[in-house]
Formats: sequence, C-alpha cells, structure tokens
Amino acid sequence: MTSGRGVWITLEGGDGSGKTTQSNLLASWLTDAGRTVVRTREPGGSEVGQLIRDIVLHHRGDIAPRAEALLYAADRAHHVATVVRPALERGEVVLQDRYLDSSVAYQGAGRVLDATEIRDLSLWAAEGALPDLTILLDLDPGAARVRLDSADKPFDRLEAEQVDFHARVRDAYLTLAAAEPERFLVVDAAASAADIAGLIRARVESLLASR
Amino acid sequence: MTSGRGVWITLEGGDGSGKTTQSNLLASWLTDAGRTVVRTREPGGSEVGQLIRDIVLHHRGDIAPRAEALLYAADRAHHVATVVRPALERGEVVLQDRYLDSSVAYQGAGRVLDATEIRDLSLWAAEGALPDLTILLDLDPGAARVRLDSADKPFDRLEAEQVDFHARVRDAYLTLAAAEPERFLVVDAAASAADIAGLIRARVESLLASR
Repeated sequence: MTSGRGVWITLEGGDGSGKTTQSNLLASWLTDAGRTVVRTREPGGSEVGQLIRDIVLHHRGDIAPRAEALLYAADRAHHVATVVRPALERGEVVLQDRYLDSSVAYQGAGRVLDATEIRDLSLWAAEGALPDLTILLDLDPGAARVRLDSADKPFDRLEAEQVDFHARVRDAYLTLAAAEPERFLVVDAAASAADIAGLIRARVESLLASR
Repeated sequence: MTSGRGVWITLEGGDGSGKTTQSNLLASWLTDAGRTVVRTREPGGSEVGQLIRDIVLHHRGDIAPRAEALLYAADRAHHVATVVRPALERGEVVLQDRYLDSSVAYQGAGRVLDATEIRDLSLWAAEGALPDLTILLDLDPGAARVRLDSADKPFDRLEAEQVDFHARVRDAYLTLAAAEPERFLVVDAAASAADIAGLIRARVESLLASR
C-alpha cells in the first residue's frame, strides 16, 4: 500500500452505472463519520489535468492511440503526485472517480493497444500507487445506454463509441476485478441506489476498522 | 530504418546553438536540389502537439516530472504518427527541430528521471522510429548563454534553468552521439555558419546518394 495514513478509494464502471450517485452517498456518510474527504477524478483532477482532459475529450480531430494513452498517463502522474499523495499523507480519505482500471479497460479493451502495456504505463506514471479499495459498479451496457439516453445529455467522444465497445470494456473490468479480489468490490449496478450504498458502506467500514 | 522512401533528419543541441540557422540553410539547399522538404519540430509539430507544448512550456505551476515526460511522449506519438510517417511515406525529406535525443538529454540528465526510462518511453510513443540522420550542434553552454542574452528574447521555463544544467545536457548529448555514430553527425557549433552548413551538406549529400 502506498496510501500513508489516509485511505484511497476509487470508483469504476461505465458511464451511466451510477458512480456519481454512489460517490455522493459515500462522501456524505464519511463526512458524517468525521472523516475529511477529498473528492477527485481522472482525467482532470488537477489544474494541469483539466488542460489535458480538454485535449483528450474535446479535440476535434483524431488523436493517435499512443498519444491518447500517454495523455491519460500524464494526467495520472500529475494528479497522483500533487493531489492524491499529499491528501493521503494528511490522513484524509481520497474518493476518486476513475483511475488506472479505466485506462486498462477502455484503452486496452477497446483500442489498438495492449492492456499490459497500458497498465505498465499507468503504474510508471503513478510510481506504482494502487488504491486501498476499488468499487466496480458493474452494469450491462444495454442498461447503461438506456440510462444515458433518458438523461438527454450530449455524448462526448468516448460516450459516442458503440455498444459492443462497452461490452468489451465491461469484460475487461470484470477480468481486472477477478485478478485482484482483495482490492475490488464488485457491485451489481442494477440494484437500488440504497442497496448499493449499503454494500459499499459495509466494505468501507471494515477497511477503516482495519487501520 | 523506418523512413520508407523519404529521409528523416533531426537537429539537436542547446538553445543558442544555431539549429534554426542551419535548418534554414539546409532546407533551402534541399529545396534547390528539387526535394520536397517538411519542416517540423517537437514539441508542438502538430495541432494536438501545440496544445501539449503550451502546457509543458507555459503552465504557471510546477508539473510533476513524470507528467512532463509523458506529455512530451504524447506529443511525440501524435507527431510521428500524423506528420512524420505520412511525409516519409510520400518520399519527402522531414527536417525536424528536436526529437527523442532532446528528451533523453534534457529530462534524463537534468531531472530526477532515469535516461533509459525516458528513452524507452519515447520509443514506445514513436513505435521505435529513429531518424536517418541526427545533426548535433555541440556548443559550450557558456557560449550559448551569451548568444541567447544578446538575442534579448524572453526565456521560457526550460531556458531559465541553470548553466550547470546545460552542461549536463551537453554531456548527455555527446554520450548519445558516441553510442550511435552512424546516426549522428556532431558539429562544433562555434564554427562559422557557412562552415557548419558545408559539413552538414556533405553528410546529407552522401545520405541521399545512398538511397
């Protein structure tokens, strides 16, 4: 573990899987329990990261696949060094939307790049830092699509990809979770928000108690 | 060689070593000889690269060292894939200000990162592509500083580094050139512009004749 005195929790899953809702609920619960919570995200969890995120998500031309992977890794390197590590050293709880599992699942499964190379690149960027807990909100891509459509918000470049791309992403996530069961909590995102929140709290409670 | 039918020439050396002057002279000579010349640079030799270059050179806060290295690598990946390779495939001469030797010399020698890791990162970004010829304009850092001061232009973030940093960069460049004598032409940048141009032309002429 690289988290010093704090606790580092990441949320993973496709768009529409409910990460924001669960992040809100968990943050409130942790705050009520007296913890200082830093909520952040990748890409874009730092000032430099915002500039990088703008390039990756909103550039109007194609970005070469390796360039895209390197931009995500650059965002990660700066974010971990300047946001995550300092908060953990202060003993805070870092609650983060997406981390390296997103890179492996999205770029490795969906693009032309090798998943192991993407993971190695991310680990080099972050000097090997891994979260104490990764919550995977697992959802059938068809169900996620219905949720996004009903929200009627514009799709960004990644969201506009095909449904079968999202099926490969889901498979990649589940493979990652199976390889590191001690780090991952896999939750069925089709359950009610309250039920999911209860499962997450139970796991976080035992994580905090173990410190 | 990865250059297809074209020829890829990179110029290296510290700021103030005369890269721009020699690039201008060589481009004119090649154009007069009937070659199509694409002049480009890293960082910033593509539209995406311009956005990245702005972050690296002009961001007002510190950038984590690994993030900076990854941003340069991202620029490189996009530039090689979208500018250099297509031009070489068209049979053109690519004349480029700075490439991976700059990353190794500046980041590896001057920063906290390992030169071998920087080189590996660059080669991954560029899918192993190396120039046919790299011209190193070698100059004592003290002499380079005098030239820059007399030009009275504002220093960017890298230029503002110390003179002993530039001495380490020079050593790193010379080490790289010694390791690949067939790729490098090392020229004493304290010689006259005309003499330097003559040495460069002779080498480029024999490179073109060998095709």
